[in-house]
Amino acid sequence: MKKLKLGMIGGGPGSFIGAIHRIAARMDNYYDLVGGAFSSSFQKSVETGKELGLDESRIYPSYQELILQEKQKPENERIQVIAIVTPNHLHFEPAKMALENGFHVVLDKPMTLTLSEALALKEIQEKTGNLLCLTHTYTGYPMVKEAKQQIAAGKLGKIRKVYVEYPQGWLSTPIESKQADWRTDPSKSGIAGAMGDIGTHAFNLAEYVSGLSVQKLCADINIVIENRKLDDDGGVLLKFNNGASGVLIATQVAAGEENNVKIRVYGEKGGLEWQQVDANTLTLKWLDEPAQTFRTGGGYLSSFAQHNTRTPSGHPEGYLEAFANIYKNFAEHILAIQNQADPKKESLDYPSINEGVRGLAFIETVIASGKSSQKWLDLN
Amino acid sequence: MKKLKLGMIGGGPGSFIGAIHRIAARMDNYYDLVGGAFSSSFQKSVETGKELGLDESRIYPSYQELILQEKQKPENERIQVIAIVTPNHLHFEPAKMALENGFHVVLDKPMTLTLSEALALKEIQEKTGNLLCLTHTYTGYPMVKEAKQQIAAGKLGKIRKVYVEYPQGWLSTPIESKQADWRTDPSKSGIAGAMGDIGTHAFNLAEYVSGLSVQKLCADINIVIENRKLDDDGGVLLKFNNGASGVLIATQVAAGEENNVKIRVYGEKGGLEWQQVDANTLTLKWLDEPAQTFRTGGGYLSSFAQHNTRTPSGHPEGYLEAFANIYKNFAEHILAIQNQADPKKESLDYPSINEGVRGLAFIETVIASGKSSQKWLDLN
Amino acid sequence: MKKLKLGMIGGGPGSFIGAIHRIAARMDNYYDLVGGAFSSSFQKSVETGKELGLDESRIYPSYQELILQEKQKPENERIQVIAIVTPNHLHFEPAKMALENGFHVVLDKPMTLTLSEALALKEIQEKTGNLLCLTHTYTGYPMVKEAKQQIAAGKLGKIRKVYVEYPQGWLSTPIESKQADWRTDPSKSGIAGAMGDIGTHAFNLAEYVSGLSVQKLCADINIVIENRKLDDDGGVLLKFNNGASGVLIATQVAAGEENNVKIRVYGEKGGLEWQQVDANTLTLKWLDEPAQTFRTGGGYLSSFAQHNTRTPSGHPEGYLEAFANIYKNFAEHILAIQNQADPKKESLDYPSINEGVRGLAFIETVIASGKSSQKWLDLN
Amino acid sequence: MKKLKLGMIGGGPGSFIGAIHRIAARMDNYYDLVGGAFSSSFQKSVETGKELGLDESRIYPSYQELILQEKQKPENERIQVIAIVTPNHLHFEPAKMALENGFHVVLDKPMTLTLSEALALKEIQEKTGNLLCLTHTYTGYPMVKEAKQQIAAGKLGKIRKVYVEYPQGWLSTPIESKQADWRTDPSKSGIAGAMGDIGTHAFNLAEYVSGLSVQKLCADINIVIENRKLDDDGGVLLKFNNGASGVLIATQVAAGEENNVKIRVYGEKGGLEWQQVDANTLTLKWLDEPAQTFRTGGGYLSSFAQHNTRTPSGHPEGYLEAFANIYKNFAEHILAIQNQADPKKESLDYPSINEGVRGLAFIETVIASGKSSQKWLDLN
Repeated sequence: MKKLKLGMIGGGPGSFIGAIHRIAARMDNYYDLVGGAFSSSFQKSVETGKELGLDESRIYPSYQELILQEKQKPENERIQVIAIVTPNHLHFEPAKMALENGFHVVLDKPMTLTLSEALALKEIQEKTGNLLCLTHTYTGYPMVKEAKQQIAAGKLGKIRKVYVEYPQGWLSTPIESKQADWRTDPSKSGIAGAMGDIGTHAFNLAEYVSGLSVQKLCADINIVIENRKLDDDGGVLLKFNNGASGVLIATQVAAGEENNVKIRVYGEKGGLEWQQVDANTLTLKWLDEPAQTFRTGGGYLSSFAQHNTRTPSGHPEGYLEAFANIYKNFAEHILAIQNQADPKKESLDYPSINEGVRGLAFIETVIASGKSSQKWLDLN
Repeated sequence: MKKLKLGMIGGGPGSFIGAIHRIAARMDNYYDLVGGAFSSSFQKSVETGKELGLDESRIYPSYQELILQEKQKPENERIQVIAIVTPNHLHFEPAKMALENGFHVVLDKPMTLTLSEALALKEIQEKTGNLLCLTHTYTGYPMVKEAKQQIAAGKLGKIRKVYVEYPQGWLSTPIESKQADWRTDPSKSGIAGAMGDIGTHAFNLAEYVSGLSVQKLCADINIVIENRKLDDDGGVLLKFNNGASGVLIATQVAAGEENNVKIRVYGEKGGLEWQQVDANTLTLKWLDEPAQTFRTGGGYLSSFAQHNTRTPSGHPEGYLEAFANIYKNFAEHILAIQNQADPKKESLDYPSINEGVRGLAFIETVIASGKSSQKWLDLN
Repeated sequence: MKKLKLGMIGGGPGSFIGAIHRIAARMDNYYDLVGGAFSSSFQKSVETGKELGLDESRIYPSYQELILQEKQKPENERIQVIAIVTPNHLHFEPAKMALENGFHVVLDKPMTLTLSEALALKEIQEKTGNLLCLTHTYTGYPMVKEAKQQIAAGKLGKIRKVYVEYPQGWLSTPIESKQADWRTDPSKSGIAGAMGDIGTHAFNLAEYVSGLSVQKLCADINIVIENRKLDDDGGVLLKFNNGASGVLIATQVAAGEENNVKIRVYGEKGGLEWQQVDANTLTLKWLDEPAQTFRTGGGYLSSFAQHNTRTPSGHPEGYLEAFANIYKNFAEHILAIQNQADPKKESLDYPSINEGVRGLAFIETVIASGKSSQKWLDLN
Repeated sequence: MKKLKLGMIGGGPGSFIGAIHRIAARMDNYYDLVGGAFSSSFQKSVETGKELGLDESRIYPSYQELILQEKQKPENERIQVIAIVTPNHLHFEPAKMALENGFHVVLDKPMTLTLSEALALKEIQEKTGNLLCLTHTYTGYPMVKEAKQQIAAGKLGKIRKVYVEYPQGWLSTPIESKQADWRTDPSKSGIAGAMGDIGTHAFNLAEYVSGLSVQKLCADINIVIENRKLDDDGGVLLKFNNGASGVLIATQVAAGEENNVKIRVYGEKGGLEWQQVDANTLTLKWLDEPAQTFRTGGGYLSSFAQHNTRTPSGHPEGYLEAFANIYKNFAEHILAIQNQADPKKESLDYPSINEGVRGLAFIETVIASGKSSQKWLDLN
């Protein structure tokens, strides 16, 4: 097996998500991190690159340099995939340049700063044919994949209700930190705070699991902590394309909460429930029958759940494994193409450009709704 | 100790809630059921009365007869408290007549069919000075009382978020049953289905625990099952009088769900969570400290929780005990008055006429909001 | 319906279990408490009797008086059932006298102070034909009954393993209280402390649910708190009559534990798990299939579970309801006999004299094993 | 940072644990796998090595070749750490040879086939000064480390009770598979089946968390599945060096169970509970105070828990992360030595040669006890 050569933009000293991406990329041995532009400070970039054991010649002072110089290298040496782990305002330009110069791209969500950027990126991606992968982590959990498959197979019947929530408490006080800073700064984060950072995860999870798309929404968007510049809280009523309805909750001021993203979906015949705090369990509830507890690693699970599991049942797989599943499937897709093989359908099940566009559409609509006295706004 | 003499209106053959009221009234030995008008069919009334071991002379053909004849009896024989456990459309008239004729009243929620009836009943109750108790069962749980006390004592700081939900699945199919029938019939249930039946419980729980009142709401109200005449589902955005916001969910089409009413409240310093499925646990969550698990029977609990508990910690108390707590506190209030003593503050903590008025205000506003294209409606 | 007339021996001021028995007897309206000898102090007995609203003429200074005087009364007035809720050393004599004088008996566990007393009582009970009911509360839970039925129906295949435990923490310190006092005093409690008080519950639960009987055991019995006179802790290896093996844990020094009695049973095809802290849930686990969650009130449950349930699924039933189920079934058995009808099989499912004999056999064997250097002792 | 060069013995096609070791070694970027003797079949070894992207020159036909040839290489090229992931009977010889030839060793548990081998290996290890790390995975969980620290800091007071259990169900039927095969074959697994495979994990967890050592035990050891050659089930009574007592359960025939290893420890002031199914939660229970829920990532945790955590609280860390923590700490220890620095105390907290010796002492004593009619056997 030939490993994919990976480069990274962002992820320098103090970055949480950069380190996560690197672990995720390493886990299944599909990637070799060989180069990076880890920080806008070249010194910091070098510091991080050396810590990672990189050859100094491939530690770059800017993403532009990374892209241009790697492009010059012989095909069997050059970086093939670039992971962009910068704040939101630094997604579009590097992603655009990478795609246009022949690189596949891994990108953090939200995909871009605005919907128009997202649509532009989609056009570029489609034109160049290079692949893009968006790290909506929660869809990487085996039990989330099982949830989607159960619904897709019609086990719950027609879907009627979708409840999704993402409660956090870490912004309950007016904190200042590297993590909080850019997330609460409109110039870096875009027009949304909580709704962009975690609301998009909840939204993506709802559409992914249900197989439906949100058509209308009505939002209550709040800035709870005085002087904060972006929303830190919101509740949203949802209408889906098949007539189902639902509720989305995303808040960063639920003091004492960690990251217990949770989804419940109900159809004519039953319902299901999944939450991150018990990530290896999927509960299926039935009309007039005992509920069932599906568990990661179970022999009765769909091929999608099994494909994304590394250990026998009973050994908890966590957030890093879910994250790694996205990297893994993306690698398998790229390698299949390189080998002119048909990718497995399980490998194609990772979030991509369309999920990115939907995320920005959600952000713009939900923020507009928060400001509107009109009840329902369309989300197209 | 002299027990209170109890009469019952409704609760004949096939009634679920009548049997529950009787168990609740019996549990703490404060009441003797001595008479009733259990059904509009005298024969059925007699059947139920005899099963209950009542003297046949006090089994009445109508609530009017019950009230008029009991009123004639000598003071130490006559019924003192009347429990009205009929469908909603048969709440107002019997309650009015009972209050006006010198009886205390236990009433099921929603208190009346309309807000104007509720306001009229409030006026009557205040004029007559007879007491009224509304069986919002969930506020009878010791851990719900503890939740209220923790917030009232400022442990969570200023409240910011209230999430309350009541998911049921039993109306997921177009069923026909005594229980479902009147609940889905506007002439008996009023203008609301799910919102009246369980939405009011959720609403009451939110206001009771938080100590706040809802001022504005925005509702998505649905009839999910075709041809049903009343709502069986809804999601509601809430605004409270102190600036807090929240979400209320009540649905009867969450297939596979039982009655897991649940509330979460978050303030500046922490949050709390309670749900009926684990009714003897109250979780307190803190910023940067381990969460705490409060348990029914714990020596560290408030006097309100302890007053409403019968067994040492570790022996689960359930729904019937919560229901019985309402009966018990109401009895203690009446007995204190009879004995010209000051009632304990814990005894006064039962839902009453004001909660009933709030419930109807909620029903009328939430249904109006469901039909409105205006985002926020006031709830006064 | 004619209610059974109930008398009580013990249960005076400060008694925990007396109050519990009275609530249990009231819950389903099968009994009228009409007399009692609540304390060895006549004054205290009168105090309790008056609080309970009894006619003073039926408050007795001793259990002997209660039995002799009630026996004189006309059949339709006299007490039919006597509940004995005294400490262990005051079980045998009153129970013997009651049975011999024509009363049915409800008795707390352990049934007597010694195995020889238990065997003598069994002989008396069989000779007189009067009924005896032993309040092994935990077998009154609907989900415990379901567990037994699942196993009896062969759903788990041949049983291989039984794990049962009863951890408490309330004797973690050398406390002095009415509750703790007699339980740690050999002259009142018998030769066993924790093993008699809660070990017998665990043992009974294991035999009841599995349908097996313990044939050999090997015990580690400890007095953890210095100067305590009776065991407060133990672990026991078990061998059953069908070749299955197991472990029984009972301790009163597990600091921080309440009363989370728990049982797990495994057979060839699957296993099951129940615990009091989540008393309305029974988990069935299967080889290579998702586990199932059975819940009190479910329409799919056995007639035994349904017979012992008062509310629709989702409304938790607790310890008092489980206790009341024992009273209820005992009443239904007596009433069937009085009416010369066949009792329902569900009504016969309450702990009785044989369970009492087994309990004492367990106590004597387990304490002997604790002192023995021989590994296995027989339990016949 | 210079990465450690890693070689592997065992872990060829179909090996579960080999793949796990490789993920664990990769996770924190401390190791580069550069060579291996993955199978007794050279062809299979080459197959695995190539899949892993190894240079063919470092894929060896035998562990002897690996050790001898790597030893010849210049210091900055040669393998420094050898992971031995073969069945039990192939632990001692390769480990001995590796240590004697200057390699550090990672070894699966149980460390050797017999206690005498274990003692011999300890002597070799001490003589050579090369390091040995034993992958008792469960002690790698952050919340297990926190449990140990809480007890070490005296939070629970003097320890009185230790309950540990490891229930599995996968050997409930007479299966034949690569995984089951050698584990049920005495010539490969040693004298113990379940007790060696999972009993040693439970035993290690009990000693690690409590800080105590088992001095005496009394075991019930069973072969439940007919014709199986080694034990598949057992229950053990334990006595610890400080007078505490406990129970250890290990079974592979608890049909429907996965791998829910669980430990509970109780002291004078409180107790704690941890289980793998909810691996990021540690419950602390207190006398007369609410229980507390410690969670991986909490800012209030000990440095030991924090050192072994990669993500902010709320992102579940699982089995692979726990496994990786052992690799990580071992690497940090080796690197500190190489850099002539003092290792952090947190880095030294990994299972090593003494835990290996204890494991074999446990195996030999527990199996002897299973066959003995004497109650207590000493474990020295």
